Amino acid sequence: DIEKQEFSRFPTKTGRRSLSRSISQSSTDSYSSAASYTDSSDDETSPRDKSQLNSKGSSDFCVKNIKQAEFGRREIEIAEQDMSALVSLRKRAHSEKPLAGAKIVGCTHITAQTAVRFTFFNNKLQSPDSSCSVFLMEMGCVSVFAWKGESEDDFWWCIDRCVTTEGWQPNMILDDGGDLTHWVYKKYSSVFKKIRGIVEESVTGVHRLYQLSKAGKLCVPAMNVNDSVTKQKFDNLYCCRESILDGLKRTTDVMFGGKQVVVCGYGEVGKGCSAALKALGAIVYVTEIDPICGLQACMDGFKVVKLNEVIRHVDVVITCTGNKNVVNRDQLDRMKNGSMVCNMGHSNTEIDVASLRTPELTWERVRPQVDHVIWPDGKRVILLAEGRLLNLSCSTVPTFVLSITATTQALALIELYNAPEGRYKQDVYLLPKKMDEYVASLHLATFDAHLTELTDEQAKYLGLNKNGPFKPNYYRYTSR
Amino acid sequence: DIEKQEFSRFPTKTGRRSLSRSISQSSTDSYSSAASYTDSSDDETSPRDKSQLNSKGSSDFCVKNIKQAEFGRREIEIAEQDMSALVSLRKRAHSEKPLAGAKIVGCTHITAQTAVRFTFFNNKLQSPDSSCSVFLMEMGCVSVFAWKGESEDDFWWCIDRCVTTEGWQPNMILDDGGDLTHWVYKKYSSVFKKIRGIVEESVTGVHRLYQLSKAGKLCVPAMNVNDSVTKQKFDNLYCCRESILDGLKRTTDVMFGGKQVVVCGYGEVGKGCSAALKALGAIVYVTEIDPICGLQACMDGFKVVKLNEVIRHVDVVITCTGNKNVVNRDQLDRMKNGSMVCNMGHSNTEIDVASLRTPELTWERVRPQVDHVIWPDGKRVILLAEGRLLNLSCSTVPTFVLSITATTQALALIELYNAPEGRYKQDVYLLPKKMDEYVASLHLATFDAHLTELTDEQAKYLGLNKNGPFKPNYYRYTSR
Amino acid sequence: DIEKQEFSRFPTKTGRRSLSRSISQSSTDSYSSAASYTDSSDDETSPRDKSQLNSKGSSDFCVKNIKQAEFGRREIEIAEQDMSALVSLRKRAHSEKPLAGAKIVGCTHITAQTAVRFTFFNNKLQSPDSSCSVFLMEMGCVSVFAWKGESEDDFWWCIDRCVTTEGWQPNMILDDGGDLTHWVYKKYSSVFKKIRGIVEESVTGVHRLYQLSKAGKLCVPAMNVNDSVTKQKFDNLYCCRESILDGLKRTTDVMFGGKQVVVCGYGEVGKGCSAALKALGAIVYVTEIDPICGLQACMDGFKVVKLNEVIRHVDVVITCTGNKNVVNRDQLDRMKNGSMVCNMGHSNTEIDVASLRTPELTWERVRPQVDHVIWPDGKRVILLAEGRLLNLSCSTVPTFVLSITATTQALALIELYNAPEGRYKQDVYLLPKKMDEYVASLHLATFDAHLTELTDEQAKYLGLNKNGPFKPNYYRYTSR
Amino acid sequence: DIEKQEFSRFPTKTGRRSLSRSISQSSTDSYSSAASYTDSSDDETSPRDKSQLNSKGSSDFCVKNIKQAEFGRREIEIAEQDMSALVSLRKRAHSEKPLAGAKIVGCTHITAQTAVRFTFFNNKLQSPDSSCSVFLMEMGCVSVFAWKGESEDDFWWCIDRCVTTEGWQPNMILDDGGDLTHWVYKKYSSVFKKIRGIVEESVTGVHRLYQLSKAGKLCVPAMNVNDSVTKQKFDNLYCCRESILDGLKRTTDVMFGGKQVVVCGYGEVGKGCSAALKALGAIVYVTEIDPICGLQACMDGFKVVKLNEVIRHVDVVITCTGNKNVVNRDQLDRMKNGSMVCNMGHSNTEIDVASLRTPELTWERVRPQVDHVIWPDGKRVILLAEGRLLNLSCSTVPTFVLSITATTQALALIELYNAPEGRYKQDVYLLPKKMDEYVASLHLATFDAHLTELTDEQAKYLGLNKNGPFKPNYYRYTSR
Repeated sequence: DIEKQEFSRFPTKTGRRSLSRSISQSSTDSYSSAASYTDSSDDETSPRDKSQLNSKGSSDFCVKNIKQAEFGRREIEIAEQDMSALVSLRKRAHSEKPLAGAKIVGCTHITAQTAVRFTFFNNKLQSPDSSCSVFLMEMGCVSVFAWKGESEDDFWWCIDRCVTTEGWQPNMILDDGGDLTHWVYKKYSSVFKKIRGIVEESVTGVHRLYQLSKAGKLCVPAMNVNDSVTKQKFDNLYCCRESILDGLKRTTDVMFGGKQVVVCGYGEVGKGCSAALKALGAIVYVTEIDPICGLQACMDGFKVVKLNEVIRHVDVVITCTGNKNVVNRDQLDRMKNGSMVCNMGHSNTEIDVASLRTPELTWERVRPQVDHVIWPDGKRVILLAEGRLLNLSCSTVPTFVLSITATTQALALIELYNAPEGRYKQDVYLLPKKMDEYVASLHLATFDAHLTELTDEQAKYLGLNKNGPFKPNYYRYTSR
Repeated sequence: DIEKQEFSRFPTKTGRRSLSRSISQSSTDSYSSAASYTDSSDDETSPRDKSQLNSKGSSDFCVKNIKQAEFGRREIEIAEQDMSALVSLRKRAHSEKPLAGAKIVGCTHITAQTAVRFTFFNNKLQSPDSSCSVFLMEMGCVSVFAWKGESEDDFWWCIDRCVTTEGWQPNMILDDGGDLTHWVYKKYSSVFKKIRGIVEESVTGVHRLYQLSKAGKLCVPAMNVNDSVTKQKFDNLYCCRESILDGLKRTTDVMFGGKQVVVCGYGEVGKGCSAALKALGAIVYVTEIDPICGLQACMDGFKVVKLNEVIRHVDVVITCTGNKNVVNRDQLDRMKNGSMVCNMGHSNTEIDVASLRTPELTWERVRPQVDHVIWPDGKRVILLAEGRLLNLSCSTVPTFVLSITATTQALALIELYNAPEGRYKQDVYLLPKKMDEYVASLHLATFDAHLTELTDEQAKYLGLNKNGPFKPNYYRYTSR
Repeated sequence: DIEKQEFSRFPTKTGRRSLSRSISQSSTDSYSSAASYTDSSDDETSPRDKSQLNSKGSSDFCVKNIKQAEFGRREIEIAEQDMSALVSLRKRAHSEKPLAGAKIVGCTHITAQTAVRFTFFNNKLQSPDSSCSVFLMEMGCVSVFAWKGESEDDFWWCIDRCVTTEGWQPNMILDDGGDLTHWVYKKYSSVFKKIRGIVEESVTGVHRLYQLSKAGKLCVPAMNVNDSVTKQKFDNLYCCRESILDGLKRTTDVMFGGKQVVVCGYGEVGKGCSAALKALGAIVYVTEIDPICGLQACMDGFKVVKLNEVIRHVDVVITCTGNKNVVNRDQLDRMKNGSMVCNMGHSNTEIDVASLRTPELTWERVRPQVDHVIWPDGKRVILLAEGRLLNLSCSTVPTFVLSITATTQALALIELYNAPEGRYKQDVYLLPKKMDEYVASLHLATFDAHLTELTDEQAKYLGLNKNGPFKPNYYRYTSR
Repeated sequence: DIEKQEFSRFPTKTGRRSLSRSISQSSTDSYSSAASYTDSSDDETSPRDKSQLNSKGSSDFCVKNIKQAEFGRREIEIAEQDMSALVSLRKRAHSEKPLAGAKIVGCTHITAQTAVRFTFFNNKLQSPDSSCSVFLMEMGCVSVFAWKGESEDDFWWCIDRCVTTEGWQPNMILDDGGDLTHWVYKKYSSVFKKIRGIVEESVTGVHRLYQLSKAGKLCVPAMNVNDSVTKQKFDNLYCCRESILDGLKRTTDVMFGGKQVVVCGYGEVGKGCSAALKALGAIVYVTEIDPICGLQACMDGFKVVKLNEVIRHVDVVITCTGNKNVVNRDQLDRMKNGSMVCNMGHSNTEIDVASLRTPELTWERVRPQVDHVIWPDGKRVILLAEGRLLNLSCSTVPTFVLSITATTQALALIELYNAPEGRYKQDVYLLPKKMDEYVASLHLATFDAHLTELTDEQAKYLGLNKNGPFKPNYYRYTSR
């Protein structure tokens, strides 16, 4: 029986499915892939009211327009060029079938790149020939319930539709933010108890899992892939190093050279942002609350200041803290004409945008994602993405980064699904270091990078297994 | 008499005018400003066949849609935020009127930023309230004949319409490429002889002027602003340092980190490109023909190679040479699957794109400006902008750079128009170093940069005038 | 009773003492401070056979020449300029006397900078007026038994003399390498059992402590200060970033620009070395065994290779692995004429130097620390410091780095000495994160760096104490 | 007759000679090669009063101690490892003998590296086997009159002894500073008139030549090799980029990371210094008088300030201006305790050191080249090299840089000596660009750099000769 042998059951027309969601911009941020630029359809009908069939006759999905599949196919083909690690893992999975029988329900962003991830779960899909979120249903490999511009209500409706399909019950959860986990936990506790594992990739979702665990209510093993070393480095340091430039440039055409910039927070995101801007000739100041990170900023050549010391003369303020009200109204009042402010951190409260919605200030939308907030004296401050995440709103996440994430998620699903009884208890785990290293090693081929192998003598001298793991769990992996 | 006092006569309805042209993409490259993203009108009527009036009742212009003025106004307002040097020079010009009586005919690209340049020529226009190329006519300050997508024939029709208006005869030429100069020189020699000066900003146009001069046929003083120090640094080094990143990212979402890149040519453009890519973690190789530039590349940490040594394993090939067939078919045949090739140099012949238009290769347009060229074995090479200039086709030129150019042009016009008899003969000149330094000093305010003044004693010791020029003409201004 | 109030008892003439040792070059590496350059005395008498008195009449020490005190005083004064954090902690300690009653026996390197550390232990010594290892005895604040060039036998003699003084018994151990701890543990177990704490700063010493602990034989709480975050960053990343340049330059006057360098190992040391060399224009290759570190190298712009791929054409080989035989004879045979090889790692076996001591190779010492190893065909390979640590042998450790270490050690001593019963058991501990952050914060003043303080609201939002610790224990502190 | 065929006449025992001078530190700066570290002889006899013979029996030289030859041989061997370009040119010269018959009198610094240059002039000396300045006489290839510590009087005595030897009259001058040229011009005008060419490498010497030329008194063709492109880049940008680090580190062991530094002047030297310091984590401010250079500093990411704005809080002040009194007493008074000041510019008047020699300030020499200047309140400012050039006083010039200079000088000598009648008139010339490019190409081999050759078609397209020169004379060779 094929159903039992393969992990890719869910996309068949019998109704097994997975939810994939592009979180709507009204509720939170979303990746603005190149695809979205063309998404200018004037069709105002709610997808919930549409009746669509994919080419295989299935109607078990809900998206805006199934006809965009061809465009999606191309986007995915482009994406796959830079996702050879995921593609090679997919190839291996298609022969070894480590997820046979798995029924995965997921809630995550969909772009060309994340779409590649879903092709992973279907061993018949080696050469996709339709497109992105749409292509996925069109191919029947995943059932998608999501569309751009969905309301809060739509969002929960989509989640519910995913879990409650007749004849299909999920046994794995792939979550990004914890909303899906929360919904299943609260509304379908009998389903929840039978889940074999949860894979969660977001800071917020992980936080919720730890809380659940502390409260003794987590009855399912969960894997925190957000803190995997390889994924972390790429999500934060390497990705933000590029997306800060991309996000600022696309929205404002600003020249970086000579600009005075203050980066609030010198964690991985702040490090990536300040390094990139400095490399392109900006003068960068850093604010920090933590003396160790502050000292790192000093040694990297950044003046560590309080925001108030520089707010009057900087050209750009970038928040990367995870904190709230890092830039407050008082400081916004003192910014100079033509200066800009944006957020690369974790939430949309780092800049106190709410404080700018007062009668004496005029907002003028000059481009998508770009508002001029105008003070009574004519001073303009340029606010990007209304304070939401710049890298998600105004830039694209490089395919390669998403390959890292997707590979990490896939390995976490495989690990949890196949782990012998007892290896994982009802707790939250980090991806085992060896699998973390495996994610990295799969991606080295892209760079034509050749690792050195330990000799037997050296391995013995170092007390290491020749195949890793090569570092203790607490190792810090400084980036430079 | 107002006419004699002001240099801004040309835009009035009496027919005085200036041509401003956005060179059509079919004939050559064009700046793709953000504005163009919205230029998706389905109106297929040729602008030549349209009858439009601006709000002042004038029909002495020819553009696609006069109604886009409001959008243009916003773009210009954004642009002016980063063009304070030009704005301050405009203010000074409006009071001193150094171009009173000048009738300037021009042929150049139009974007929000270049539009600001034209507001310069009108002393009534301190606070523009309509938009870009369209805004300019709408305001009646410049007569524009240009539209996106114009044919070769349209282009020359536009030029001709500019020069031949009844009751208005140009006495200055502002050119970019030499087409306008050539047209006037060939077709309207009596007009040409009365021109008081030509300001030319492009390599090609300057080359044509020197040829004319050598042939003894240049009967008008001309100023080569292309080789002004300040402008050069920004047009090439500083601009390309940013636009290579922007151009690659917008078209392909490529991650720079770890990519193997070969930069062909280590002049200013090549230096900018390789520095930026290296700064973001790419591994960069350089090819050179000149041993001095080759040695510079070595000292800057780049391996100097022949293209054939690396062509098989690089991810990106970037041409910056000014030469032709720098990447030939044989080399394109050897590039690896998924690699990309683009041009940052001076012409669209650096990559031998013509050689790729053969039956055995399939071209697939995957996005605007992005073609996959597919070999019979399935190998894909990603060609950007069909080998035309990436920085013009797929990136924006930062406003600040255009401010430098526009300020340089404006000062060149002022210098030529006001120079005492005999200062300039029938030859091609560089902008005097003192004015070159003035362009720079006007832009320092943006950076809150404070120059040091020489004491009398120091000036004497150095044998310099305290106000400059500070360097001999042959000084090289190494950038770092 | 003064004795009980002050922690600085040990240096008084009653015989309480501390051993400070400059480990001889014959047994292992030693800091080559500037001081050593002048140490060209021809006096061949063993210090053990000399009878010397300091100016206070004490003979309870053993050094080469007590008369070098004045030179040492100056070196210390220079050092203190860059050790303001330690000086400010010393000031606080002199008023709070947290080490009153402590009798510390130590075994560590002595330079001007480490000497400052010892002035810390004496509240009478706010303005030192003699010199370095010598100055310390001269002032009577520490009893030193050490000299440059001591034999293996001398070394153990010195250790023994420290522990066995009549009328004085140590209650704290400050060790660097574990030799002293081992000696006391083995030879004076009754003394060992009464020790209140051990502070160990070296990799090797820490390793030995963990082994002792595993074996259940560690009857004293010990603090591993080697792995303190602040100290680690400086010891490895920041220090090596500078000392690789300094070490290579001082020994060989090599120009870095354009040199091809292979850095073996991309841990913190390798990251520091490769970043610095790249920044100065070298072309750097990296070898790695760990895929995660290898991927980091890729993203930082380094080609990851096997040593054999590049050994024939590189100019410099630098080992930073902690491994052994990373460069073997076979590879040395293939290095090109004039190339150089050196070690920045953890031991002197990273380069298989022993394999070069064969009859067919000629060694020629061309300068101190610089050997030309000459192959039969005339090829010369330049070996630095005979494969010992370049940063210790041929460079100086910046004062600021030593201030970090010394501050960390002092706080560890204070913590262990004052901790309430039960806080520390018979085990090995890391410095509490809060004290780690305190070390960092003390050093921020040097950079005129201003930390931001959390508001109450923000602290609550983040779930943090306003005074730290600011990060969980597993936080990785990427450097950039 | 061999004597007439070879250009190496001067070193024979018949008395033909060349002067090579190590300018004494009392009169001006001198390279402090590693050799000088061992120069601790206590022999106080003036070399003028010594009678020495080299191994060939010649006494026609005057140096301190002919016995140091062996040490010099080693230094030269080390130097030759990094001077392969010069060595290959030497090889070619030894076969082609382009300087046959040339009798060169020179006045320049002697180090291991410059010694290699002199081996160039003797075709018998392919494998030098004695040492440096001393080795040169010992081998009889050059007659040297110079010693470390010579007085002003000694200096002129040495010059005179060089020119006035019986039976030998120079026909070429190789000068560095113009002293020798001036002496011959003033005292031996009949000799001067017969000189076939002068090669001058210093700013000062070139300045004097231009003055002589302006005054119509230069009756000999002279070549200004100081402004050769290749040499300039290395002397200034590339050399200073490394020597600023080396000079500061060797003298003060300062850690660069986080230090606040102001670099006065943003010419090539300032660019090199600020780039290097920034790369190692310093925070760098720049002062400038020239708006173009100021704008370059902005675009490179440096805040352009007036010295007074930052003098109170910077840790290091570095002058690179060529100007005088750039740092005056008033500013020195405001520097903070422990800050340091040094000079990388052109003269020893950039820092007003004279103003510090007042009674209320105490000078304390803490190390060679390092003075603490102590204010009445105890504040110490660290002055390096007494304000003389740090890169010459406290660092070494990399061998490779000296190879560039020596190769340039040699080619200039060859060009002047062999130029057909009339090519050079009685004026000052720059090295022809083609020879400048040749200098560069000879040095590319060191980097294993492979130039690309133009195809015939490309050369024609570009209007270039395939062998160069590749650039017009005014080309600026931006470095990055």
